[in-house]
Amino acid sequence: MIPEPIFTVEPWSITEDQLQLGLLPHAESVFALSNGHIGMRGNLDEGEPFGQPGTYLAGFYETRPLPYAEAGYSYPEDGQTAVNVTNGKIIRLLVDDEPFDVRYGTLLSHRRVLDLRAGTLERVVRWRSPAGRELEVRSTRLVSFVQRGIAAIRYEVRPLDGETRIVVQSELVANEPGPAVSRDPRAAAALAHPLVPELHEDHQRRAVLVHQTRASKIRMAAGMDHVVEGPEGTVVDIESHDDLARLTVATEIGDGQSLVLTKLIGYGWSSRRSLPAVRDQVDAALSSAVRSGWDGLLTEQRRYLDEFWDGADVEIDGDAELQQAIRFALFHTLQAGARTERRAIAAKGLTGTGYDGHAFWDTETFVLPVLTYTAPHAAADALRWRHSTLPLAHERAFQLGLEGAAFPWRTIRGQECSAYWPAGTAAFHVAADVADAVIRHVDVTGDLVFERDIGLRLLVETARLWRSLGHHDVEGDFHIDGVTGPDEYTAIVDDNVYTNLMAQRNLRGAVEAAARHPRTAAHLGVDDEELAAWRDAANAMCVPFDERLGVHQQSQGFTRHAEWDFAGTAPEQYPLLLNFPYFDLYRKQVVKQPDLVLALYKRGDAFTDEQKARDFAYYERLTVRDSSLSACAQAIVAAEVGQLDLAYDYFGEAALVDLDDLAGNTKDGLHIASLAGSWLAAVAGFGGLRDHGGELSFAPRIPHTLQRLAFRLTFRGRRLRVEIVHGSATYQLIDGAPLIIRHDDETLTLEPGTSTTRPWSPPHVGPRPEQPPGRGPDRRRPGRRG
Amino acid sequence: MIPEPIFTVEPWSITEDQLQLGLLPHAESVFALSNGHIGMRGNLDEGEPFGQPGTYLAGFYETRPLPYAEAGYSYPEDGQTAVNVTNGKIIRLLVDDEPFDVRYGTLLSHRRVLDLRAGTLERVVRWRSPAGRELEVRSTRLVSFVQRGIAAIRYEVRPLDGETRIVVQSELVANEPGPAVSRDPRAAAALAHPLVPELHEDHQRRAVLVHQTRASKIRMAAGMDHVVEGPEGTVVDIESHDDLARLTVATEIGDGQSLVLTKLIGYGWSSRRSLPAVRDQVDAALSSAVRSGWDGLLTEQRRYLDEFWDGADVEIDGDAELQQAIRFALFHTLQAGARTERRAIAAKGLTGTGYDGHAFWDTETFVLPVLTYTAPHAAADALRWRHSTLPLAHERAFQLGLEGAAFPWRTIRGQECSAYWPAGTAAFHVAADVADAVIRHVDVTGDLVFERDIGLRLLVETARLWRSLGHHDVEGDFHIDGVTGPDEYTAIVDDNVYTNLMAQRNLRGAVEAAARHPRTAAHLGVDDEELAAWRDAANAMCVPFDERLGVHQQSQGFTRHAEWDFAGTAPEQYPLLLNFPYFDLYRKQVVKQPDLVLALYKRGDAFTDEQKARDFAYYERLTVRDSSLSACAQAIVAAEVGQLDLAYDYFGEAALVDLDDLAGNTKDGLHIASLAGSWLAAVAGFGGLRDHGGELSFAPRIPHTLQRLAFRLTFRGRRLRVEIVHGSATYQLIDGAPLIIRHDDETLTLEPGTSTTRPWSPPHVGPRPEQPPGRGPDRRRPGRRG
Repeated sequence: MIPEPIFTVEPWSITEDQLQLGLLPHAESVFALSNGHIGMRGNLDEGEPFGQPGTYLAGFYETRPLPYAEAGYSYPEDGQTAVNVTNGKIIRLLVDDEPFDVRYGTLLSHRRVLDLRAGTLERVVRWRSPAGRELEVRSTRLVSFVQRGIAAIRYEVRPLDGETRIVVQSELVANEPGPAVSRDPRAAAALAHPLVPELHEDHQRRAVLVHQTRASKIRMAAGMDHVVEGPEGTVVDIESHDDLARLTVATEIGDGQSLVLTKLIGYGWSSRRSLPAVRDQVDAALSSAVRSGWDGLLTEQRRYLDEFWDGADVEIDGDAELQQAIRFALFHTLQAGARTERRAIAAKGLTGTGYDGHAFWDTETFVLPVLTYTAPHAAADALRWRHSTLPLAHERAFQLGLEGAAFPWRTIRGQECSAYWPAGTAAFHVAADVADAVIRHVDVTGDLVFERDIGLRLLVETARLWRSLGHHDVEGDFHIDGVTGPDEYTAIVDDNVYTNLMAQRNLRGAVEAAARHPRTAAHLGVDDEELAAWRDAANAMCVPFDERLGVHQQSQGFTRHAEWDFAGTAPEQYPLLLNFPYFDLYRKQVVKQPDLVLALYKRGDAFTDEQKARDFAYYERLTVRDSSLSACAQAIVAAEVGQLDLAYDYFGEAALVDLDDLAGNTKDGLHIASLAGSWLAAVAGFGGLRDHGGELSFAPRIPHTLQRLAFRLTFRGRRLRVEIVHGSATYQLIDGAPLIIRHDDETLTLEPGTSTTRPWSPPHVGPRPEQPPGRGPDRRRPGRRG
Repeated sequence: MIPEPIFTVEPWSITEDQLQLGLLPHAESVFALSNGHIGMRGNLDEGEPFGQPGTYLAGFYETRPLPYAEAGYSYPEDGQTAVNVTNGKIIRLLVDDEPFDVRYGTLLSHRRVLDLRAGTLERVVRWRSPAGRELEVRSTRLVSFVQRGIAAIRYEVRPLDGETRIVVQSELVANEPGPAVSRDPRAAAALAHPLVPELHEDHQRRAVLVHQTRASKIRMAAGMDHVVEGPEGTVVDIESHDDLARLTVATEIGDGQSLVLTKLIGYGWSSRRSLPAVRDQVDAALSSAVRSGWDGLLTEQRRYLDEFWDGADVEIDGDAELQQAIRFALFHTLQAGARTERRAIAAKGLTGTGYDGHAFWDTETFVLPVLTYTAPHAAADALRWRHSTLPLAHERAFQLGLEGAAFPWRTIRGQECSAYWPAGTAAFHVAADVADAVIRHVDVTGDLVFERDIGLRLLVETARLWRSLGHHDVEGDFHIDGVTGPDEYTAIVDDNVYTNLMAQRNLRGAVEAAARHPRTAAHLGVDDEELAAWRDAANAMCVPFDERLGVHQQSQGFTRHAEWDFAGTAPEQYPLLLNFPYFDLYRKQVVKQPDLVLALYKRGDAFTDEQKARDFAYYERLTVRDSSLSACAQAIVAAEVGQLDLAYDYFGEAALVDLDDLAGNTKDGLHIASLAGSWLAAVAGFGGLRDHGGELSFAPRIPHTLQRLAFRLTFRGRRLRVEIVHGSATYQLIDGAPLIIRHDDETLTLEPGTSTTRPWSPPHVGPRPEQPPGRGPDRRRPGRRG
């Protein structure tokens, strides 16, 4: 957690008014720009000081051997790690031969603004050099949502005290040094100098560097082109080397004059295409961007975002910080997925190297539902990526002795990279999470072509996995044994309720999709016997329930286990996994992150209201929230069971996880799932949105503190706006054909262009559930900051 | 498994009549000599060719980092690996400048004999050099049971065709090259050149080399002294260097003459003592050995073994191979433990570097029971070693959040070296196995001083572990959750029956021992409340039983799991752990090695006869015996439930595991636990020996094929001989005060010097239990070989 808030509270932007060097790593993540294809951390233009210099490309990684002191069958041999690629952000400035460096001289003023509507990061700095020269630097940076291979920087230097000699060096730097990314010396070695130079070229104001990774053999080209606007006598030179290309602008600027450098940066990469092809791709992207020009790029960017916000904005009255935070969250969720296009959406997006740049189940579980409702093309693309990895998932399933597809627990390209199988391979629920995202995506978009071409095969192959993973007992109940659910403090258990119910949804979803696309299903080898086997397994699915306590067991035997000694656990012993052995965590009742509670949300149709309330209260007492995936799920279920204040507290934590650095590791990259989850907390929590069985339903309810909550989403091509105030909710169908929804127990038919208002009453609520001592959310108090 | 038997069948020796180079690694293990303190593989005197050159010292190891791709709290950082120390066995011979090497020239005859009564390895070779010179080499090697730091070789060269120039080089070689011991490059590097030279000295016919390990900082001295008997004109020279000391004998020998070199080899080592102290220790040992002389050493050795066999021999009529094998097994069990003296008895003894030279639960479970009955001082010493590691076990327990002592799963010195916690740390049963060995040792020896000074603390600290590891449920039952039992194909389970029942014995044993030594117990902080807590936990111990099937569950839920697809598993897919992922093995009914069945033996007092028969038949169907710890336990329980032919088959496998190389890895060292277990198979299996509650009881029964089985053991200082023939058993108390035993349901009082014969009838027997296809034992047919 950061000691003091560093960002001012504004509805549509994040502003940093002063530079605190200790918080630089944090701000680099918060100010990261990305379109899902290219990502750039919010490093200072001049490259130094930095927390972690970072430029990332979706799906671009290096492999490294995974070491095992005791190896086992089917352990992955190689890991994949996102690579900090050729840095195109660097623009160095020399003022009368003195390098501009905020650590020297005097920083007279500093401001950075992340503009959520413009899609830019702006910086305005006034600096006095050690020799006493004062000047203003103004830079604006964007990573284009429209031209996916392009980033751009407009860099303006203005002397404040007369004629000044200025040199600006705009660079591409490959293999730049950074902090070590791994304690394993072999991994560190593999990643210390990952890019092997293949080509460097320069011509006029453009330069291109081509490199290839040593082991994974992925080729990348980084290029830059420039527009230089300076006073007469400005001299421009360009050069290129193996790991460096540099445009040098030398000039002398007087009062009222300025030097403006527009830098266009292009990236292209491929594991298959030839060197000339990759180089040409970057040259073409640069030419297109030069044609658009800075203003053109800015305009496109804003238009793209206007369109997005129009279908996705969330408005909150009564908590300005959360208003800012939810938009920040949505913006970064979009940045993570907008143009990822058949590559994985990583847990950190392209904002840092946390988790090695891997994608997990988080993407399908927390990110895709948001994208499906707000940027459906991005969600479809992410599922197309999963589809593209089916051959690898087949191979993995075969290796594991299973049918169908076993998706990896963590990966960049699609191969399993988890070196700890109890929390990796055994967490088979990722298959059902993918299926869940497919089913929802088809329900919400109505895109049957997508279902036929992409979704069906994902559903079929994951259904096959479940059928082969589970088995019937002598009484005919279907069990899935020896797996790990979402709660990573419990592993290798029988009949994890979340897994079983999600597998049930998966199996039934596959049956239904196969019925809609019989020819494609037949082509995939699905026959009536297989459908019957899926239907039967789903219907016989075991869901363990503790009759004595009247609650569901997270897995067989869970509620009989000893409870964790919460009272005897000191605050500094969290997160528990850093201070207690897995064996002890696994065998006791202690929950890292919602598991049964996540099932209450995701499979709400399988529980009664009373069960939800009892289960939530039971597991709330055990959930220590050592994962950032916790708060949003707890917010949703808390809201459903009527605990609106508690839901509000959790909502705050989910939304502010990165702005306030609540997990203490925002420097390694943003928590995209938690950020996306804050949208879910608002929309599924307070909005009560559910889509069980493809039916769109709402159960609106907002806490006392908020005056108003409004959100927008897209359902079957129609944009819908929902506005909740105390006592009533208004549904407004912005466009498209009439839409049937449910409001609480009432069915409403919404007509386009009209509004429908319905009352709601605050739910009857029991006592606020308890959390383990010290592990409850902070009570949310609006206006705490800003 | 070796293609052809290479050893002839004899009652008191193992003879190799021809040299098969491909089987050299196997023979090196079989012919290993050790006293538990020093071990030497049966390498050829001249050092080459070799499978694995090996000289090992108890407790002498090097540390190496244990790598983890995903590290976790409490994972051990360093491993320990036994080091091949300075080789003192090497005696090179040059015949007219031609090195004697069996790969060149012509091997006219070859014979090696391991003499189980003399405790020597003898070799007689006739060789014709490539140049045509013929000679005979006769060497005899021993590792002294009496002078624990001493080994000796008598080496005699006799030309067969007249005057021959002979040079003999007797060496100490440190850091000798061998095959790589690890695939991990870092480990290999650490062990490639483990010994750092500190001192080399030579004087007259003696030389000493002192080295220290690089990381573990253990210092060792190896010395040699010689007696040379050669014809006149024999010249002797000695020299020493960092990693080499060499005595050179040059002579010319005529017909009827010979050169006899007696080489005395001494070792000393310490992690604490100074260089001069360690060097002087070796010099002193050598001086003492020189004083004894070769004949003296031989005489001592035979006297020691006569004494041993007198109290330990097993006689078998009707199966000459098993007669040989059981004596071979007992000899190596003795060699592993005789003089280990407060260092660990490793799984391979000192015969090879399999399992890194680590000791496991095998020692207490299979080896110490045998030593307790046949060489009780050795068993006591092994338990003193455990006692000496209590500070480390405390520290480990503390790290794991537990009370008392958590002994390591695998170790040399006492620190946990297991890098895979589900089959290491979680296998807490090692604590109860230690306690079981303590309880038995005290029961069998009646040594209350040992109990007070050593045993009690081991019992108390392990009882504390169980009390803190388990917990009561709401109904008051005591559960031990999240542990791994002996069956390594099932891990991290609740209420493993073996663990729970052994913990129960541990808790009760601690209560009883504390009552016998109240002052010592009070000194250890044991009070009435703690005793009550142990008693209560033991009484409330949960033992899961499947009412529907009428069998015990190996652990909670076990019998509900899917059964392994045995029919679909090909023979080459065994051992399963090399071909299937742990996740799949763990969640299915498949048993690597007896677990519940081992409980039927070790805690036979907790089961009815009917339960034993049903449980044995149920688990027999599931046990694939991918561990060499299987056959002996199955033999014992098979015999108990009346399946004598099956017991006989298993007995054969346990006893022949190394002579016949049944596991295919005898080259890495002998399976000491299986060898010891074959004594248990004979004595506890066919003899029906049990010692529940400290009472010595027998239930004699031998299979049809055998005519007679007799065995000897020591109980409370009296030697007892039991002879079983068909229809009757005779008990003979050789010495000491009268002894009360049980024969089946009858109590007998044995008087010294007399025999008591009682009838037994063949047990009523159900159908032979089935094993998984292809995983049953081979039907034992005596005379199959030899």
